[in-house]
Amino acid sequence: MRTLTVELGERSYPIYIGQGLLQNIASFFEKHQITKKSPLFIITDTHVAPHYLNDVETNLHKAGYTVISAVVESGEQSKSLAVYEQMMTKAIEAGLDRSSTVIALGGGVVGDLAGFVAATYMRGVRFVQIPTTILAHDSSVGGKVAVNHPLAKNMIGVFHQPVMVLYDTSTLQTLPIREVRAGLAEMVKHGLIWDEAFARWCDQHAEDLLALDPETLAYGLEKGCSIKAQIVSRDERENDLRAILNLGHTLGHAIEATAGYGEFLHGEAISIGMAGAALLAVQLGADPSLYTETKRILERFGLPTVMPKHLDTDQVMNAMMHDKKFKEGNMVYIVPKAIGQVYIDTNMKVSAVRNMVERLKEGDIHV
Amino acid sequence: MRTLTVELGERSYPIYIGQGLLQNIASFFEKHQITKKSPLFIITDTHVAPHYLNDVETNLHKAGYTVISAVVESGEQSKSLAVYEQMMTKAIEAGLDRSSTVIALGGGVVGDLAGFVAATYMRGVRFVQIPTTILAHDSSVGGKVAVNHPLAKNMIGVFHQPVMVLYDTSTLQTLPIREVRAGLAEMVKHGLIWDEAFARWCDQHAEDLLALDPETLAYGLEKGCSIKAQIVSRDERENDLRAILNLGHTLGHAIEATAGYGEFLHGEAISIGMAGAALLAVQLGADPSLYTETKRILERFGLPTVMPKHLDTDQVMNAMMHDKKFKEGNMVYIVPKAIGQVYIDTNMKVSAVRNMVERLKEGDIHV
Repeated sequence: MRTLTVELGERSYPIYIGQGLLQNIASFFEKHQITKKSPLFIITDTHVAPHYLNDVETNLHKAGYTVISAVVESGEQSKSLAVYEQMMTKAIEAGLDRSSTVIALGGGVVGDLAGFVAATYMRGVRFVQIPTTILAHDSSVGGKVAVNHPLAKNMIGVFHQPVMVLYDTSTLQTLPIREVRAGLAEMVKHGLIWDEAFARWCDQHAEDLLALDPETLAYGLEKGCSIKAQIVSRDERENDLRAILNLGHTLGHAIEATAGYGEFLHGEAISIGMAGAALLAVQLGADPSLYTETKRILERFGLPTVMPKHLDTDQVMNAMMHDKKFKEGNMVYIVPKAIGQVYIDTNMKVSAVRNMVERLKEGDIHV
Repeated sequence: MRTLTVELGERSYPIYIGQGLLQNIASFFEKHQITKKSPLFIITDTHVAPHYLNDVETNLHKAGYTVISAVVESGEQSKSLAVYEQMMTKAIEAGLDRSSTVIALGGGVVGDLAGFVAATYMRGVRFVQIPTTILAHDSSVGGKVAVNHPLAKNMIGVFHQPVMVLYDTSTLQTLPIREVRAGLAEMVKHGLIWDEAFARWCDQHAEDLLALDPETLAYGLEKGCSIKAQIVSRDERENDLRAILNLGHTLGHAIEATAGYGEFLHGEAISIGMAGAALLAVQLGADPSLYTETKRILERFGLPTVMPKHLDTDQVMNAMMHDKKFKEGNMVYIVPKAIGQVYIDTNMKVSAVRNMVERLKEGDIHV
């Protein structure tokens, strides 16, 4: 088992990564002094529940915990205020109290939803993340929790750090390949923004990662989590540095919102967004290889890098304007400098972004 | 002008109390470095808007601020997830960004709603409280913000401290007498839990307070805010001490929920709750004068002290079980020891509370 700590002063917490951790789930709960007097509330989804919910419930139950659970529809549409309200109703009816713990068993959607429930139930209860996707190696670190508003993603949320993250890598073996690819997009992102050597390692190990080779995957997840943890430790509430984690996300979120949540997986949308950010960098004077290399690495993972032609550019731009990275009337954009380095442009011209979006619709871009 | 600071380390903030402060509202915003580049969002209600919204908007506008506003229905029913979602929609459509400030112009309902909007819009923006009721001298201190769930009050919320509280006492002159009485219930509560001398002062100055004598009122509000600030400074997140502020609230919330939000004003419900807590104390062995004195002081303010007979005791008890002061299966109850002193009973017998609720329905209780 690998253990990694997210350093946040009194809100610091460990990430445990290893195969088969869920078999001993109760011992982790006991280690973290999670009370047996108050009910635990597991939130999971229709994809994950059939595989793991029963085992997790049984293991916790055997150790003396009272467990209630809710299974939401798999997919982004469950990150809504309506589903959030259903979770609150369930929590109240089951008698969750202030000493209860909410558990996210699933991917990013479940983590964000359950985290927002934990953050706001009775003004905040404890929260445990059990990610079951590769993508969630990103979202389970850093305490960002939220639901979507019909007009923009993640608009409704807070920061709420978990007490621990339990990353059982054996749960990843049942992931559909499309989700594996999309999850690895965030892993590659961590290399692209912070660590050229790790970006190159991802490139070289693309096949083993896609094949879910346990050792390779565990290393990649630990490294990805650790990069994110370093950034979050320096800027928990995204006053400045943390914004670099949004590489590819301004455009990515706009693609998701315009296409309707569900058509693109988050990792696919940000892959297009990262290719777009590199293209923008080249338009602004960076070496053309920055774009071609970024594109090549993403495509090694079978990820999309071309803007879907059926999405209306005006709509996409409009969705970006509502994006929360939009600050004081200026457009904030994360732009790569080189593989492994990015900067935050707080004064990006909307026309330059629009131009990039239009160009990104072409399948074969000559830079 | 009286200035009082709520000491909360880096989250400390001032409360300004005085007549006519809203005439100079913009100078307070400038003093607190609230940016003119991002829109301000005022949330107010149908009772307050006709009196003050136009002036506040005009004064801010003249100073160069962009201001948008939303007017919600006056009353507890606006503290709902549905109204909260409408506020979020308005904020997004108006282009509020992370540097924006949300302003609560109104009483406790508006403060709680606007505060929860501020706390969760884009994971938290700044928040200014402009209380226009006496009751809000309580709710504007301490950072508790929330909306109601149909099953229980204030179930959905977080802690989010304002950057300042602007208490213009001239706004209190237009309050209906029933709201004046209800607001003074929280002022009396601050004496009952913490400061016998202040409780006696309230008793002696009941007539001047009810007549809204400016000097008497300003002193009472400052003292009430200051008691609350002292308690909140010692226990911001209600791990222990802060719970004493809930004197009368466990039963009070249950009365509000059972009667349907709106039949009783919050102050009226907690007045009954405080009389009930004193009766419970006497049942548990305190001197009978504790109940008769508490009842007498509350009645000096024209506040109710008898449990409404039409409320079903089972329903009231059930509402209390869902109350968030219910911890780890034991009933937590705030019980007076003497005028000016209370204790937190974390193991109160439900049968004793039920017995008190039944007795409290009698108009003339002999203790």
